[in-house]
Amino acid sequence: MPILQPIVDLAEMLVQKGITDVLVSPGSRSAPLTLAVARHPRLRVRVMADERSAGFVALGLAQQSGRPVAVICTSGSAVYNLAPAVAEAFFQHIPLLLLTADRPHEWLHQQDGQTMDQIGVFGPQVKRSYDLPADYQHADARWFIERSVNEAIHLSQLAPAGPVHINVPLREPFYPAADESFQFGPVRVIETLSTQPTLSPDTWHTLLDEWDQTERILIAVGQLPRDPALSQLLRQISEEFSVPIVGEIVSNLAHNGQFITHTDTFLSGLSADRGRQLRPDLLITLGGSFLTRNLKTFFRAYPALRHWHIQPSIDRITDSFQSLTTLIPAESLAFLQKLFADLDYQRFLQGAEDEDAGAYLRQWQTADQQAARLIHQTLDAVNQPLTDWSAVQQVLDQLPENSILHLANSMPIRYANLCGLDERQGIQVSVNRGVSGIDGCLSTAVGAALATERIVTLLIGDVAFFYDRNALWSAPVPANLRIVLLNNDSGHIFRLIDGPGRQPELVTYFETPHGYTARNTASDARLVYEHCDSIETLTSLLPDFFQVSEQAKLIEITTDKLVNQRQFSTYKAALNVHYAESDQ
Amino acid sequence: MPILQPIVDLAEMLVQKGITDVLVSPGSRSAPLTLAVARHPRLRVRVMADERSAGFVALGLAQQSGRPVAVICTSGSAVYNLAPAVAEAFFQHIPLLLLTADRPHEWLHQQDGQTMDQIGVFGPQVKRSYDLPADYQHADARWFIERSVNEAIHLSQLAPAGPVHINVPLREPFYPAADESFQFGPVRVIETLSTQPTLSPDTWHTLLDEWDQTERILIAVGQLPRDPALSQLLRQISEEFSVPIVGEIVSNLAHNGQFITHTDTFLSGLSADRGRQLRPDLLITLGGSFLTRNLKTFFRAYPALRHWHIQPSIDRITDSFQSLTTLIPAESLAFLQKLFADLDYQRFLQGAEDEDAGAYLRQWQTADQQAARLIHQTLDAVNQPLTDWSAVQQVLDQLPENSILHLANSMPIRYANLCGLDERQGIQVSVNRGVSGIDGCLSTAVGAALATERIVTLLIGDVAFFYDRNALWSAPVPANLRIVLLNNDSGHIFRLIDGPGRQPELVTYFETPHGYTARNTASDARLVYEHCDSIETLTSLLPDFFQVSEQAKLIEITTDKLVNQRQFSTYKAALNVHYAESDQ
Repeated sequence: MPILQPIVDLAEMLVQKGITDVLVSPGSRSAPLTLAVARHPRLRVRVMADERSAGFVALGLAQQSGRPVAVICTSGSAVYNLAPAVAEAFFQHIPLLLLTADRPHEWLHQQDGQTMDQIGVFGPQVKRSYDLPADYQHADARWFIERSVNEAIHLSQLAPAGPVHINVPLREPFYPAADESFQFGPVRVIETLSTQPTLSPDTWHTLLDEWDQTERILIAVGQLPRDPALSQLLRQISEEFSVPIVGEIVSNLAHNGQFITHTDTFLSGLSADRGRQLRPDLLITLGGSFLTRNLKTFFRAYPALRHWHIQPSIDRITDSFQSLTTLIPAESLAFLQKLFADLDYQRFLQGAEDEDAGAYLRQWQTADQQAARLIHQTLDAVNQPLTDWSAVQQVLDQLPENSILHLANSMPIRYANLCGLDERQGIQVSVNRGVSGIDGCLSTAVGAALATERIVTLLIGDVAFFYDRNALWSAPVPANLRIVLLNNDSGHIFRLIDGPGRQPELVTYFETPHGYTARNTASDARLVYEHCDSIETLTSLLPDFFQVSEQAKLIEITTDKLVNQRQFSTYKAALNVHYAESDQ
Repeated sequence: MPILQPIVDLAEMLVQKGITDVLVSPGSRSAPLTLAVARHPRLRVRVMADERSAGFVALGLAQQSGRPVAVICTSGSAVYNLAPAVAEAFFQHIPLLLLTADRPHEWLHQQDGQTMDQIGVFGPQVKRSYDLPADYQHADARWFIERSVNEAIHLSQLAPAGPVHINVPLREPFYPAADESFQFGPVRVIETLSTQPTLSPDTWHTLLDEWDQTERILIAVGQLPRDPALSQLLRQISEEFSVPIVGEIVSNLAHNGQFITHTDTFLSGLSADRGRQLRPDLLITLGGSFLTRNLKTFFRAYPALRHWHIQPSIDRITDSFQSLTTLIPAESLAFLQKLFADLDYQRFLQGAEDEDAGAYLRQWQTADQQAARLIHQTLDAVNQPLTDWSAVQQVLDQLPENSILHLANSMPIRYANLCGLDERQGIQVSVNRGVSGIDGCLSTAVGAALATERIVTLLIGDVAFFYDRNALWSAPVPANLRIVLLNNDSGHIFRLIDGPGRQPELVTYFETPHGYTARNTASDARLVYEHCDSIETLTSLLPDFFQVSEQAKLIEITTDKLVNQRQFSTYKAALNVHYAESDQ
């Protein structure tokens, strides 16, 4: 058996277990892994020099494809450069398989190059960490490798999905002879059957009774991939049972006349009276994290009597609003489908609905409509200047139908949430709200663009953009990527949120202006570059910007942070007036 | 007591314990830490948006100053972006104090933003990890903070120095009122007295006997900061006791007619006969890691009968050459001073030296001189093209006296080691040979330049440069920094080392050409930019390049990887011929 055959087999196992994409960062210690995946005819391998970017590109690919993506890097600090993406994947439940080359452990602390303690290096931010043997001669060693790789790929997809780490100590020689070819022979694939979580009839009865006995029921949806079937079902539930469905931009529930999407506006500075009016008796939540403080604060300040949270795995209690009563181990769609069918049948048996059942929903919907008007007024002011917010609104309005929108963290995602999307646009929204860093948003969007032929538009601020510009460096940038860069020359969020804006240290220690424009970065990365500093220019540029092209494109929108701040303050003041009045 | 007073006190403790420099990356969770250090009149605080760069800048500062440098970042994946620098600091024994803001732990896994498991997040790559309480009300909590910060700073400097982590969970409110001023009152500083490791007279006797009974003694020095006293002492030992002193460029032992510095050349492809001739009976090593494989392979293939390794702490056995017999817990200079004095006295008592004692030293020195000539011939060939190697030689020749040279990993450090420096230049060489990554070389050089007014010259390849270009992004680049960029448009080392060069995957999966030049990056970072593609241009540009200026400067040297490869092959071939002949 060739000495590296277990590594060649490992590549075959990736394929057999359904992995199609691999990110590689160059290295010599990792060469056996690199060569094994590069030579496998059924793996698409991309190469990026900066491991931090490679990790987030893999995350973007996995986020879109739903399949685990493998990442290969060399030993030493290279491994730690993957860690930011690993943390994001862990908390966002994205399957990644991290294959880190290592020196055999006996070389640790012997002053040899690129050697650090890599066993369990990602700590609790991976689902599990395997450490393969450096020597493959014993049959048990090969059995261990085979079994571990099977288990790791399986585990990465098992709910909650997430990153799994395989540390791969490798001895020299790393390279096959020039005339040696790899044999991707048969490998042992261990099938792991999947199950559906099934609640007992008794449990269902209890839940249905609880629903039935409750007047004010509200469903709130956190971060979720786009799922038209789920969206349609939620709309039916809302219509037939007068249940407000609350979503944010990260929920992929767009405006459709039924869903409540402007909570960040109308739950701001709520009076106690209004809070009590809006409070649900039964709150049902599904999906990942919620975006805005206003929404989270509302559910904490006005806790529901009962709170059901639906999540596929129940090894942790996610009690975001400090009022959880029931954790439901289920896939959201399957659970809600059965719930709806049962409720429908029950209603059929019981006859006509309570006449006033719609009052609670109407309160939420009225508030939502008022909020939409207020935002509309803010953005439609006469002589409207170009601001980040107005630019975001323009971009969202003109997005190509059925395209993908990646929202970078910090302000872009917040502005986009204030604006919202229309269901008819068919936009799929992707975000990094696992640990919500700015560190890999650009790379994640590159990964998304690699996973699809659709247009992928990234809305990103200047700090996040330059932070992660290595995303554009070492591989050709996918031609379907569109970067909309809001450049206000600062970490602008610190001026807008309460607190840092009042400090004399604001500019120097928080905003950190840099004076960069993206023109040079775009030129280096061979992107089509457009610049604009007025709404009119932006509006006229966008149709062409979104056309299919042979190169990725970047549009840089220069805004003035003080003008942005003024618009935001006007909005905040209008909120206060509006809700002070409506509370009277 | 103001609610944030323990954080204000923490800043005061940094100062009292001797810390003068802090690196901050902006964040809101970390704002109390940021404000406390920013407002302290005795702390120099620099701000960098990319935590990865901030970590390495801190490392560069600490490497030059010898004092611990504090690093502050916000919660979530920001923390992981510090990890590459943390690993380098740990294995290079550089003191860093990592202050990571955190959400209070009860918020972990509750789908709140920028929250991950930060307790002990750097694993075994820090000396210790502290986790402060989120609530400061109880007096014991304040006692714990006070004691932990004292201990952490102490520990970071205790041999072996290294990074120490303090995780700082913080509750809102993060920001003081606009009119609130911080009181940097008295804090309790716990003095920790230091000791000198002292060997007993009996132990000294044993060591001196061992020395005395050995004919062929060799001292080899690994990575060490520049220390003229140590260098002078080693020269004396070599001269008086005919001991070869072997150093590499990382040892800061430059050519002076006495030291052996061309081992990478003359230990290449050694015959068994020559190996046995050069083998020491007693090998004494000091300092950190050795650079070249040829040197390490020699000491492993021809193990000394006795091997003493001097290191300040002996909690780990560093047995780099697999032949260690004695671990000596001492500071190298102090130990060698006493050793030399005792040997001198002993010799005075014993009378004249054995006449043939110099034969072993002469063998090493002759080999070294031959190697120097061979390198000279390689670089002085007629019609010499501009190559990475010849460019490095030019730059080293023209370095300003008493300046600092930072050598980036991968090829620049290897070429510089082949060339070497002359002792009269007074150059201080700095390198990152802890885990030897390319990830933070540029940032480390920026940190070095912040620590001194001397010229700091960085020799760096294109992959390492672009990888870490955020070093130049968010703060003004120090005017005393000189970047010499060897741009061969590839991870060129893979073509030169044995193995990857033979694989059909070389270009795509290892070298990864990117087509970038640094012109745009330099322009964005407001560096003076020069470009050259001939030896003559380089030679004529350098004098001006090294002049003091108001802006940092970058010179980009474009070379052809095939021409580089040809020169290197010629050198390798000459080596083989040369040593084949001298072995006959």
